[in-house]
Amino acid sequence: MSAPRAATPGPGPGAVPGEALHGRALELELGSSTQTSHRLLAYSDALLSIIATVMILPVAHTKIHPDQKLGESVQQLLLTKIAVYLMTFLIVTVAWAAHVRLFQVIELIDDVLALLNLACMMIITFLPYTFSLMASFPGVPFGIFLFSVCAVVIGLIQAVIVLYGFYHPHLLNQQIQVSENQNFYKRHILKIILRGPILCFLAAVFSFFFIPLSYVLLGLVIIFPHLSRFITWCKTKILGQRNEEEEYHSLETFSFYLSEPLSKERVEAFSDGVYAIVATLLILDICEDNVPDPREVREKFHGSLLEALSEYGPNYLAYFGSFVTIGLLWFVHHSLFLYVTKATRLMGLLNILSLAFIGGLPLAYQLTSEFAEKSHNEIEAIQVSCVITFFASIFQFAIWTTALLHERETLHPFARYGGKEHAFMFAKLALYPCVSLGAFFLTCLLSEFSTEIFHLMQIVIPFAFLALRIFVRISLTLIKSVMSLSRRKVVLLEEEEACLSPTDTLS
Amino acid sequence: MSAPRAATPGPGPGAVPGEALHGRALELELGSSTQTSHRLLAYSDALLSIIATVMILPVAHTKIHPDQKLGESVQQLLLTKIAVYLMTFLIVTVAWAAHVRLFQVIELIDDVLALLNLACMMIITFLPYTFSLMASFPGVPFGIFLFSVCAVVIGLIQAVIVLYGFYHPHLLNQQIQVSENQNFYKRHILKIILRGPILCFLAAVFSFFFIPLSYVLLGLVIIFPHLSRFITWCKTKILGQRNEEEEYHSLETFSFYLSEPLSKERVEAFSDGVYAIVATLLILDICEDNVPDPREVREKFHGSLLEALSEYGPNYLAYFGSFVTIGLLWFVHHSLFLYVTKATRLMGLLNILSLAFIGGLPLAYQLTSEFAEKSHNEIEAIQVSCVITFFASIFQFAIWTTALLHERETLHPFARYGGKEHAFMFAKLALYPCVSLGAFFLTCLLSEFSTEIFHLMQIVIPFAFLALRIFVRISLTLIKSVMSLSRRKVVLLEEEEACLSPTDTLS
Repeated sequence: MSAPRAATPGPGPGAVPGEALHGRALELELGSSTQTSHRLLAYSDALLSIIATVMILPVAHTKIHPDQKLGESVQQLLLTKIAVYLMTFLIVTVAWAAHVRLFQVIELIDDVLALLNLACMMIITFLPYTFSLMASFPGVPFGIFLFSVCAVVIGLIQAVIVLYGFYHPHLLNQQIQVSENQNFYKRHILKIILRGPILCFLAAVFSFFFIPLSYVLLGLVIIFPHLSRFITWCKTKILGQRNEEEEYHSLETFSFYLSEPLSKERVEAFSDGVYAIVATLLILDICEDNVPDPREVREKFHGSLLEALSEYGPNYLAYFGSFVTIGLLWFVHHSLFLYVTKATRLMGLLNILSLAFIGGLPLAYQLTSEFAEKSHNEIEAIQVSCVITFFASIFQFAIWTTALLHERETLHPFARYGGKEHAFMFAKLALYPCVSLGAFFLTCLLSEFSTEIFHLMQIVIPFAFLALRIFVRISLTLIKSVMSLSRRKVVLLEEEEACLSPTDTLS
Repeated sequence: MSAPRAATPGPGPGAVPGEALHGRALELELGSSTQTSHRLLAYSDALLSIIATVMILPVAHTKIHPDQKLGESVQQLLLTKIAVYLMTFLIVTVAWAAHVRLFQVIELIDDVLALLNLACMMIITFLPYTFSLMASFPGVPFGIFLFSVCAVVIGLIQAVIVLYGFYHPHLLNQQIQVSENQNFYKRHILKIILRGPILCFLAAVFSFFFIPLSYVLLGLVIIFPHLSRFITWCKTKILGQRNEEEEYHSLETFSFYLSEPLSKERVEAFSDGVYAIVATLLILDICEDNVPDPREVREKFHGSLLEALSEYGPNYLAYFGSFVTIGLLWFVHHSLFLYVTKATRLMGLLNILSLAFIGGLPLAYQLTSEFAEKSHNEIEAIQVSCVITFFASIFQFAIWTTALLHERETLHPFARYGGKEHAFMFAKLALYPCVSLGAFFLTCLLSEFSTEIFHLMQIVIPFAFLALRIFVRISLTLIKSVMSLSRRKVVLLEEEEACLSPTDTLS
């Protein structure tokens, strides 16, 4: 009955048919249900991206009275919360990067691995809470202790995943499966995965004796991967060719997954998660806070719902403003990664920095909605929005520049230097940094019209994106015609010279 | 320079190389940047799934004092909010289904379509707010009016997307591209897309005259697709073969995308989004509400942070409990869809119903955390949790049963009736319904131990999942041996009969 359909190639549990068949054959052989990890990874990416951006909520919900100037104490509180947000974001992205690496080694999963991964996710989603404890009680060791314990547990679970994977080698990456020195790989991967947890364990121990040292150790966890890479890079630069050759050799004995490029799909999935949750954060608030109380409407507004709702006008404006900005920045990110074939680690870092600022956008727009009327802080709020937008978009620009530096490995042929698509991409990426910088300085100069400038900016940008292609084409044609004119001039001059030169050389 | 790399097959903007090349060729020809829609759809799925589940937050945040019995008024309020949640969930899933259908017709996108889609998403994410206005002011036409206007705008944007797609036929599905009667397809798709908005437009008009009619019209929007399908089904059953043939014919002139199966990838992506946001909803609350105030800790707990935190114990327990339940239900869903090759519309509907109950889980667990101490409502809270878990898991079970009814089209060969994988899947799906039902009745009988039973259930289930494979294997072997024993008995009996029968027939 099933025989005629068994050969149908239809979209099955294995996205890559060869791999699925391979896993299938082994499954029949070993009697365990092996699966591709694609959906598990997508789910993990969604969880991690939500958790990374969650800590912006306490920042955004810090209540500031509209007639109160941003005082010292409020600023202090805001700064602490922003620091917590940034630290959480970076720590979660470090955990995410480790997770990416882990599942580049283990390519197929089974039920045990899926459950272990879920346990790991559960502890990771608890991290933001330990961080906010640390921020509220910087002098109490318990916060650091709890955080470190969580990190150690995460590390141990991931180590168990690695050991389980190497115990069932059919789950591993093909390249490791066929290699002879699996033990070497195992030790190397365990070293990478347990590096952070060991530092955290030390931090937990020291938290009872000398707290500042614990903080230094935790800071090390975040910058360690980049630091070690930077040191290697410096060494290569200083010691020159010999070392580079050696590094090349070590890259060869390791395989692709231990070298630079991150998985492009997972970078995209994580970014999509962050953009999606950030885009919807404001509507969560609006749904909860901005539905008027029926009794209040009856008493205060004489039953006119429309009048009551008009009170919330600035909130709606802020929502649409933030959604448009985030949507368009996603659009730029999407266009950018269409041209990218591989993401290097530096591009990954820049992407994460860009995302960290994206996470700040709802805060910025909440500020603009709260200060919209009769407030002293209107200009500050708008300027904060401009600054956040500027940094979010300039880091996207930096991703593009970094990609261009290694364009052979990272970019599609048709997006490299000089093509029309290249110019268009450049214009897309430059739009937001230019406009936000322009708006920032305009609000400094014309401080009375700051709100008008801001709203104008929001309305103009989407249309600018639509018209960008036409604009780029016109300017390219202009440049070309100017170039050809000047070239013709040069040719004419050369001809003139050529006409003159014989007499010159003769004389 | 780019020539030697141009042929590299690497993972590019086109997931399907042939399609990408096709798009690429056209791009060069037409000078527009055509892209595959994969990432746009993933982002849309993430946004829609978050928005669908968001309205559970107002339900979960309804404050109930622990010593207050669930009174009439609170129950009324809760019921209204739950109704809003369910309505929002269903409306957003209807919008999602329309979106899936739309992008089955339009397979490639360009910048204009991406921006139009983002505009569409922006309006959709605003829908929950209009719904909560409707719930708070059921007698005021403005809420319905606003909702209907949003729905009409969404319909118009989608219609523009369709028209744009048919104006640039290289963006369309291959099957439509090569077909001769594109106009017929265009009209058909426009009819499907504009059906809902037209009903909403009527609702908006009637909202000023006779509000109940508007509500009926809005209800129609949700059930219309299922209703029309049900009527067709009934007709087929009553009128029999003749009609079925006709339907078959019409299915042939339409193509696969207009017939039943939903895109499996998008069902998975949407479900993942819902599971991910629901799993993290409780930690959002914990991060905001359960960080003690430093001053309070100093005054009330004599500076002991640990003591202050122990107050929140039940909240942590609720968080881990809800994460584990949602994680395991995701795990079951994941296992289920590994065996599914195509999702029929009925399976999609059952999946959405299951997800709607999943969305209720954080609420249930919040109830258990709030009532954990000195409360009259402990048992009710636990029973609500059990009921929600039961329905969420029984609908998953129903997906499996429905899939089995059409197993040739919907399931992988190795998961069909009778295989070992089949028995294992069955056990996985049956675990949660059985346990939650068992816990429900146990709490009725042993009401003093309800909390203990509930916690025991939470701890036991993950281990049950790990041990399930072993358990299934043992029971299968047992059944087999029993079967073979009884078969041997039957054989023996038959032999005896055979020995006896000649004499019997003789006598």
